[in-house]
Amino acid sequence: MAKRKLKLTIQYDGSGYHGWAFQPELKTIQGELAAALENIFGRRLRITAASRTDAGVSALGQVAAMEVESPIPTESIAKVISDKLPLDISVSWAEEAGPRFDVIGGAKRKLYRYTIFTGEVRPVLHVRHCWHVPSRLDIKAMNEAGRMLTGTRDFKSFASAKDHRQDSVRTLYRCQVYPDDKWIYVEAEGNAFLYNMVRNIVGTLIEVGLSRIDADKIEQILNAADRKAAGPIAPPQGLCLMWVKY
Amino acid sequence: MAKRKLKLTIQYDGSGYHGWAFQPELKTIQGELAAALENIFGRRLRITAASRTDAGVSALGQVAAMEVESPIPTESIAKVISDKLPLDISVSWAEEAGPRFDVIGGAKRKLYRYTIFTGEVRPVLHVRHCWHVPSRLDIKAMNEAGRMLTGTRDFKSFASAKDHRQDSVRTLYRCQVYPDDKWIYVEAEGNAFLYNMVRNIVGTLIEVGLSRIDADKIEQILNAADRKAAGPIAPPQGLCLMWVKY
Repeated sequence: MAKRKLKLTIQYDGSGYHGWAFQPELKTIQGELAAALENIFGRRLRITAASRTDAGVSALGQVAAMEVESPIPTESIAKVISDKLPLDISVSWAEEAGPRFDVIGGAKRKLYRYTIFTGEVRPVLHVRHCWHVPSRLDIKAMNEAGRMLTGTRDFKSFASAKDHRQDSVRTLYRCQVYPDDKWIYVEAEGNAFLYNMVRNIVGTLIEVGLSRIDADKIEQILNAADRKAAGPIAPPQGLCLMWVKY
Repeated sequence: MAKRKLKLTIQYDGSGYHGWAFQPELKTIQGELAAALENIFGRRLRITAASRTDAGVSALGQVAAMEVESPIPTESIAKVISDKLPLDISVSWAEEAGPRFDVIGGAKRKLYRYTIFTGEVRPVLHVRHCWHVPSRLDIKAMNEAGRMLTGTRDFKSFASAKDHRQDSVRTLYRCQVYPDDKWIYVEAEGNAFLYNMVRNIVGTLIEVGLSRIDADKIEQILNAADRKAAGPIAPPQGLCLMWVKY
């Protein structure tokens, strides 16, 4: 039987997992998927994701690729795999990808959404998927700062010190803040992201919202090319990978 | 110092707990609250709830009462207790109740909401708080059945066989089904509820929505006064106690 390359769209609640990437002895998204695939196809298969999301980070549109020899029709694959997964992980879509499909290198755009709750009382049904900041935030200033972050820039000030990639230039197409009653959503759309970049951006925008950093200081922060110039990192549980485009 | 009786409004994500009622060795809402109160007031205090919600059931408006001798001002109590609780439990409001306040017997009305998701793909971020029924449901028929359940009736057919109370007559003021895209909410407002009554009603309404039970059979089901006459029980994780009125 010929090998097929499949492109899977995957959703997960990351709050109970040690991130995407497989780690022996720990609950990971990749580990759960590998176990489900082994159960279905009878052997260990390699599954690679567009983004190796961190511990606690969720996804509604993660994309992953795998090669398989199997007669299961494409339209049944998503359900067959989902049926073998824990309830907080599911494959929402599966399609045939050409043999040259590159799930990491071929990604052109990604959207991350970060959820913040500003009400006084902890939102008990949502604590796994938001950052509780019980304060009044200046949305206008946050949006101004977000606008100053867009473009093709060196985002070294917003990258984890653990990110050792030489090139820290990325393009941020959009960085917007949407309030909805006591909820605030930060959407960051870019061609690619450095390690912890979205969480460092959100942490900095919150400082702006709290008037601890002036929105017009963003340019200086970018120019510093130093992680210490930006605000603190936002916690992982508010972050969600919404989609990846190829 | 004089004893004060406090009325607390409590919210919790029940998905990680073995229900409200204290059980040795198990994680319960009452157990977590008792531990927080002991931490604050230096001794074990009795805390009683309006509804002893089951394992997996959540609340946004549970009401509980406790007696305490303490100089902490009323307006600080909710925050002081919440700070000592796990993130998925919080006290949203505290007020002084008279010495004759009866948290169980004094409850006049309660509202429960049950959440159903009908989309094909499992809603991974919400699986702890809904019942996934990936089918088209006949909302009109469900609402008709809900209407037939309202009034002062003998709800024995909708009570758990474990409910040994003599009197199974209760008043259901409202039982309505609200669709919102792929989500469906069932709201049941009554003076009091038998054990498992809301979940048995929802399970029966789903059978009606799937056209397995005719809406006009509800009268017969009520008249049977037999648990076996109604539909199966709905799982606990979709249920949430919204408020209790006195």
